Amino acid sequence: MAYRTPLDDLRFLLHELVDFPAAVSDPEMMTQELALTIWEEAGKFAAGVLSPLNACGDRSGLTLEDGVVTTPDGFAAAWQQLIANGWNNMALPESIGGQGLPWLISTLATEMFSSANKSFTMCPGLTQGAIEAIYAAGSDELKQKYLPKMVAGKWTGTMNLTEPQAGSDVGAICTRAMPQADGSYRIKGQKIFISFGEHDLADNIIHLVLARTPDAPAGVRGISLFLVPKFLVNDDGSLGERNDLVCAALEHKLGIHASPTAVMAFGEQDGAIGYLVGEEHKGLAAMFVMMNMARLAVGIEGLASAEAALQLAWAYALERVQGATPADPGKPAVIAEHPDVRRMLMLMQSRTRAMRAMAMVIAEAQDMHDNHADAEVRQQQQKFVELMIPVFKAWATESGVEVASLGIQIHGGMGFVEETGAAQIWRDARISPIYEGTTGIQAQDLIGRKLCRDKGETFALLVSRMRETVTAMQGNGLNTLATKLAVAINSLESTAAAVMKRCADDMPLAQLMSVPFLMMFGHVAGGWLLGRCALAARFHQNGEEYPAAQLASWLQSADFYCRYSLAEVAGMERQVMNYLADDADACLPDIPEVGD
Amino acid sequence: MAYRTPLDDLRFLLHELVDFPAAVSDPEMMTQELALTIWEEAGKFAAGVLSPLNACGDRSGLTLEDGVVTTPDGFAAAWQQLIANGWNNMALPESIGGQGLPWLISTLATEMFSSANKSFTMCPGLTQGAIEAIYAAGSDELKQKYLPKMVAGKWTGTMNLTEPQAGSDVGAICTRAMPQADGSYRIKGQKIFISFGEHDLADNIIHLVLARTPDAPAGVRGISLFLVPKFLVNDDGSLGERNDLVCAALEHKLGIHASPTAVMAFGEQDGAIGYLVGEEHKGLAAMFVMMNMARLAVGIEGLASAEAALQLAWAYALERVQGATPADPGKPAVIAEHPDVRRMLMLMQSRTRAMRAMAMVIAEAQDMHDNHADAEVRQQQQKFVELMIPVFKAWATESGVEVASLGIQIHGGMGFVEETGAAQIWRDARISPIYEGTTGIQAQDLIGRKLCRDKGETFALLVSRMRETVTAMQGNGLNTLATKLAVAINSLESTAAAVMKRCADDMPLAQLMSVPFLMMFGHVAGGWLLGRCALAARFHQNGEEYPAAQLASWLQSADFYCRYSLAEVAGMERQVMNYLADDADACLPDIPEVGD
Repeated sequence: MAYRTPLDDLRFLLHELVDFPAAVSDPEMMTQELALTIWEEAGKFAAGVLSPLNACGDRSGLTLEDGVVTTPDGFAAAWQQLIANGWNNMALPESIGGQGLPWLISTLATEMFSSANKSFTMCPGLTQGAIEAIYAAGSDELKQKYLPKMVAGKWTGTMNLTEPQAGSDVGAICTRAMPQADGSYRIKGQKIFISFGEHDLADNIIHLVLARTPDAPAGVRGISLFLVPKFLVNDDGSLGERNDLVCAALEHKLGIHASPTAVMAFGEQDGAIGYLVGEEHKGLAAMFVMMNMARLAVGIEGLASAEAALQLAWAYALERVQGATPADPGKPAVIAEHPDVRRMLMLMQSRTRAMRAMAMVIAEAQDMHDNHADAEVRQQQQKFVELMIPVFKAWATESGVEVASLGIQIHGGMGFVEETGAAQIWRDARISPIYEGTTGIQAQDLIGRKLCRDKGETFALLVSRMRETVTAMQGNGLNTLATKLAVAINSLESTAAAVMKRCADDMPLAQLMSVPFLMMFGHVAGGWLLGRCALAARFHQNGEEYPAAQLASWLQSADFYCRYSLAEVAGMERQVMNYLADDADACLPDIPEVGD
Repeated sequence: MAYRTPLDDLRFLLHELVDFPAAVSDPEMMTQELALTIWEEAGKFAAGVLSPLNACGDRSGLTLEDGVVTTPDGFAAAWQQLIANGWNNMALPESIGGQGLPWLISTLATEMFSSANKSFTMCPGLTQGAIEAIYAAGSDELKQKYLPKMVAGKWTGTMNLTEPQAGSDVGAICTRAMPQADGSYRIKGQKIFISFGEHDLADNIIHLVLARTPDAPAGVRGISLFLVPKFLVNDDGSLGERNDLVCAALEHKLGIHASPTAVMAFGEQDGAIGYLVGEEHKGLAAMFVMMNMARLAVGIEGLASAEAALQLAWAYALERVQGATPADPGKPAVIAEHPDVRRMLMLMQSRTRAMRAMAMVIAEAQDMHDNHADAEVRQQQQKFVELMIPVFKAWATESGVEVASLGIQIHGGMGFVEETGAAQIWRDARISPIYEGTTGIQAQDLIGRKLCRDKGETFALLVSRMRETVTAMQGNGLNTLATKLAVAINSLESTAAAVMKRCADDMPLAQLMSVPFLMMFGHVAGGWLLGRCALAARFHQNGEEYPAAQLASWLQSADFYCRYSLAEVAGMERQVMNYLADDADACLPDIPEVGD
């Protein structure tokens, strides 16, 4: 089935959920109409170019021969189209050749690309991250030499963090960087899980590599960041010799079969030539520059998988005739009429919409941070982004897997057959709760740093914004929903207080329940945002801006979400409090030596 | 990693959870020691023969050429070992050549086989189902001609229900059966999703096929059951001509790659020769004979996937060094020491144990039904089995997918790499909530038939048994757990009352929330059974029967389950009641024409 752009939802959210004119730098020029036009074009690229390559890319996969990776048929041509249309550098600053589009636009365009073809879409995403890191931390010389080609999409970029012994614990890396007389370094070491570490889409690959200089302190404080090109670059910008690095193997993976996951061997001969990005021992800080946006991008993958699954399941449910409904036992029905299938469709749709709404308010805040005149507002927006990033990354990626699984279930036996496409979405979705920091790492970040660092101040601000929504809902005929939302917000608030207390006096116990707390946070924030959407739908109900069916559908999503997903918050609260409450009398479970 | 039999858990459950002597026909002969010996041997077969074929079977998959299906290397030899050891007919009556072992023994041995190699284990399972149907409904002639070879494992069996237009709605099948002068029938039609419909493990395949005779009434009341052998069988039992049926295609599936899922074409020439099993138009009743045990068997697959995932993740978590814990930040730790990994391991272990305990009380009841002297007890046990089957089938298979996903998560990036094995478990597990009646179908069966049919009487009996456990826990120092269990039981009871009420006055709404209700039922029943295990562990704490660590581990599982999984019941209750409560003011969500 061809991917369809969720333009109606985007139009509604753009006008009703976010304050687009306030978020962008030049509201005269950058209008909502322009945003929608860009999305429409992005949708055509997603549906027309990327989507047709998705299933065949999954089936054919990648080949590695003599260090050369061949991507599936059509991928190289699609890359050329991508860069010809400028879809690779939407959010990059104009000063380096990017288009300087608001995050709001680029983030939601990326959703479309990832829905249509997750494997392919990883390549421009990683390249953008590498560009941001070089832009933020690199010397002028590095920037001048590398950024133009990377921004133009002629060269791509990678992140080389993980080593066999250093996954979530990046401080454990031991790739070495030996300083040379000319100011460059020689890099030696093995990196694993390097997405698009080798491929045939572009002429050169610019690897950003974390490594240790001699006598660097142990742990994260001894890590430096290096730019290590696949081909060395001459002073005139032309490609020189092949650098001493090679793709030693590709992983055989559960999903994203068309995205090469490379084992990279650096410096097996004399050492790969690399150039320091930023200061020595400050490599992690340089990497962190792009971490927020990279995590937002992975969260978007969760949303994208959910949207793809929803479209496929919805179409199937409206077309597949099977059985009859209890309401009309004599008449053959499409399965969308069966109550349990409706439950699944409603769950898929309302969750997907909540995820998209969350992506949009985060992108909105990032845009305000970038563009607002008032420094205090900028800082506040920054704090909101930092608080929400771990929540969105983990909650949206876990939700993506859950929604994709429901998509399989709606297809019944056909969902287990690969040709249907539902299974691929599920397989492809499964990596997102793992890479760019696992769900557990996000939860640790949320409770340990984002929640406690400012003693819950940013969180309290968010809660009061949520309560404003409740009040507005109560005043506008959405009392049933408002009551359920208010209960969920109270749960979140009191649970957060318990988490902060335990972070101070029993961190292991706080961490034990950090993931349920994060998921609860995501659920409540999603309900808050759907509540705002319901308010807007209510407001327009007698107007002409939106078709009545669309408004009814938003109200229905909010209603289902408040009844169904916010109900789960009660369980999550009890889960957390059964361990963290003062009278819980709980301790960390023992881990015996053997499993059974 | 080699599969290890969970013998310690089995020994504990056999002695402490079920009343084995009361359940078996001859307690003098069939002792617990014998049961454990059989399990030990079954475990050796699972670990030594089936487990080594699991990963390579997944990788190599199946080939179909000219209607001939070739199974992966080693499968045919394993089949010969299986039948030489008699693992294929444990539960079948001795009167037809089976071993007449209690369900308790055979069910848990099957768990081992399925943990070690799910694909392979489907073949004996399906054959056993076919045997039971022929045994229950077939004529003496059919029984004499087919059962001995099938029971001996020389021939295998299949179930042919599904057609492209008839999945969950079996009444929609249109395969035809034309009566012949000699009393046989000619079968014409296409069946899909036929597991082991064609393979090279045995000399003959006995297909049981649902079809319609001419002028049969529409729907399920016009369906008859036919025995359609791949090779016709001569009067002396030797194989005759090839019957007019062929495997037209194999599905390309998400998982169980070594289990052939065949498209079967019957009667493309003159019609396949088939023999009526039981009466005309009573085909579904004949199939239903084996439905309960088939659904129990699929539930066991969920348990088996969970156990396999648990073993793999546990071993990895104890060996993989990464980072340090908040308790001791300076010291490298294995990931099992990280609080969030512990949460996942505890969740996996406690859920798996709850699933196994549920399998055992169902098998116990089935044994009592088969063996008890008192007809009333037999009937009561039958009702308990019928109530619990849909719960176990759906809850255990959904839990199997969830536990397998946690297994991937614990492996981090390695979990997404196929070589690790965690991904295969997850893929293989995903079919079980679909086949043998989807989760939605089970939930419909639970609320519409099992709960309401006797006006909740069997359910009320179960609730009172659960409350007896609470009382016993309160009297034995398990107050914290008992309180949480009691709350969950109350939730289940009041929610069930609301479900029954809506079944009477608003079936669509009742069905809308039937799956959350079923999952809640599963969670609470699992908690009840772990509560009984905790009581037993408590009882033995000062004794010598069990190592202290084992008893502590059972208490810990029950503690975690009551705090964590029973907490979710509060959310599920609210989910259901937000739709079914008298003042909920809820209605079935609309399904608009388009998704977005």
